[in-house]
Amino acid sequence: MVNKLVIIGVGLIGGSLARALKRTDFCQSIIGYGRDAASLEKAVALNVIDGFELDLAIALKDADMVLVAVPLGAMDAVFSSIAPHLESNTVVTDAGSAKASVVAVAQPYLGERMSNFVPGHPIAGTENSGVEASFAELYNDRRVILTPDATTALGALQLVKRMWEEAGATVEEMSVEQHDEVLAATSHLPHLLAYNLIDTLINLDSSESIFRFSAGGFRDFTRIASSNPQMWHDIFIANRQGVLTVLDQYMADLAILRKAIDESDSQYLLEVFMRAKSARDRHVIK
Amino acid sequence: MVNKLVIIGVGLIGGSLARALKRTDFCQSIIGYGRDAASLEKAVALNVIDGFELDLAIALKDADMVLVAVPLGAMDAVFSSIAPHLESNTVVTDAGSAKASVVAVAQPYLGERMSNFVPGHPIAGTENSGVEASFAELYNDRRVILTPDATTALGALQLVKRMWEEAGATVEEMSVEQHDEVLAATSHLPHLLAYNLIDTLINLDSSESIFRFSAGGFRDFTRIASSNPQMWHDIFIANRQGVLTVLDQYMADLAILRKAIDESDSQYLLEVFMRAKSARDRHVIK
Repeated sequence: MVNKLVIIGVGLIGGSLARALKRTDFCQSIIGYGRDAASLEKAVALNVIDGFELDLAIALKDADMVLVAVPLGAMDAVFSSIAPHLESNTVVTDAGSAKASVVAVAQPYLGERMSNFVPGHPIAGTENSGVEASFAELYNDRRVILTPDATTALGALQLVKRMWEEAGATVEEMSVEQHDEVLAATSHLPHLLAYNLIDTLINLDSSESIFRFSAGGFRDFTRIASSNPQMWHDIFIANRQGVLTVLDQYMADLAILRKAIDESDSQYLLEVFMRAKSARDRHVIK
Repeated sequence: MVNKLVIIGVGLIGGSLARALKRTDFCQSIIGYGRDAASLEKAVALNVIDGFELDLAIALKDADMVLVAVPLGAMDAVFSSIAPHLESNTVVTDAGSAKASVVAVAQPYLGERMSNFVPGHPIAGTENSGVEASFAELYNDRRVILTPDATTALGALQLVKRMWEEAGATVEEMSVEQHDEVLAATSHLPHLLAYNLIDTLINLDSSESIFRFSAGGFRDFTRIASSNPQMWHDIFIANRQGVLTVLDQYMADLAILRKAIDESDSQYLLEVFMRAKSARDRHVIK
């Protein structure tokens, strides 16, 4: 279907897609591009990609599809670098965790070629980073959100959709704004809460024994606080408004719960806990 | 070592201890007591306990050890009921998730027999409740905290310690106050944060799609929000002060993080995330 797929940033996300596509006939060759030659060499040695280029003009020549799978903070530099070398029919997509910021960054560099750019976000990951952490099953039964707009070329959208489906994912479309709101709520806010919990506990007098007596619930709750700090920094900078909106609601609700504890308001506490348990049991896959 | 062990409240916690002890020669017989005959019959059918009694006087006759494994909100009723029937040498322990409140409740009923009461708390559990959820391995490699004081009889302490060790746990001692502070930080606060997150998301306009696009990190983070609402209500009522202290610190820290996001303060965000990831990777067992 595709001759040449170029993956810019062969880490957990890009590497896992490459591994998954290698098991299909979606593309003839997968070429990696990145700043770190050693990491790209490792990706070839691990048989994640077929080869790599350190010269962007060569990498992008005759490319049918380009996946930009770099941290949000590197998107500006990448779109600025690739724009002059893109063929007129090259389809571009990305895997950034926030979409409004990527679109805003890409627009001035891509110009009319924005119609061939399909913003995307695979809802999958682990707390680990790097090509060593990549695995072909990462996208199995996971959702990928694409956020095309009215100007997006249908052929580009269909090709990106097909790529993720070949990798095992289910693809859904929504607006950039809806994406950023949904992800702020289900992913960005929980990461912030987990990071903040660990940071609060570090500063308590008894922090040593506190961590020693943590159990399975704590381990699960704080797993996401082991995620890549730079990546998450980028996300909070990129989706500032989406995060602030849901964070303010969270803090307001927490203040009410605090008051209920302070006043031993049994009825309110029970109501909240029952409502939350019921919603979680109903909505979240176990 | 013990002839008769009486477990008051044969649910996840009491049932799992019974299952574990049945594999040892710690006691001759394990008798269950509770308000729900059907549940006790099920516990016998599942071979969790050897038998049950619905009459407390008969249940406690010649008991060497009594484990009170009921919700914190039921502690007062249980200690009031068992006190008149306790033999002078019966050792009593409990499994409540907060300790100051249990000691305060037990004191007036037990009086001089407080020396035979060893407050305890196994740091183990799942989000499920009831005897059906119990399993013998629940305490394997888990910690049990005992909170004796200067008046506790050494023989009683040693027997309770031995019981939990036979069940696979490591036993540590600390003061009631330290226990309640440590548990507020590692267990009670995370549960509150998880319940509050789900409750905040329910009330957003896009809550349907929000849950639909949640991924593994969200599932792990919110698992504890599927815990028993009544039990957690009891814990927040019982450990009110311990929870409020750490919650206030958490909310203050979160407000500072919010400001850093609002101001796109990259340096502060990175500092917090790196510090938290480093502490979590160092302290929390994977």
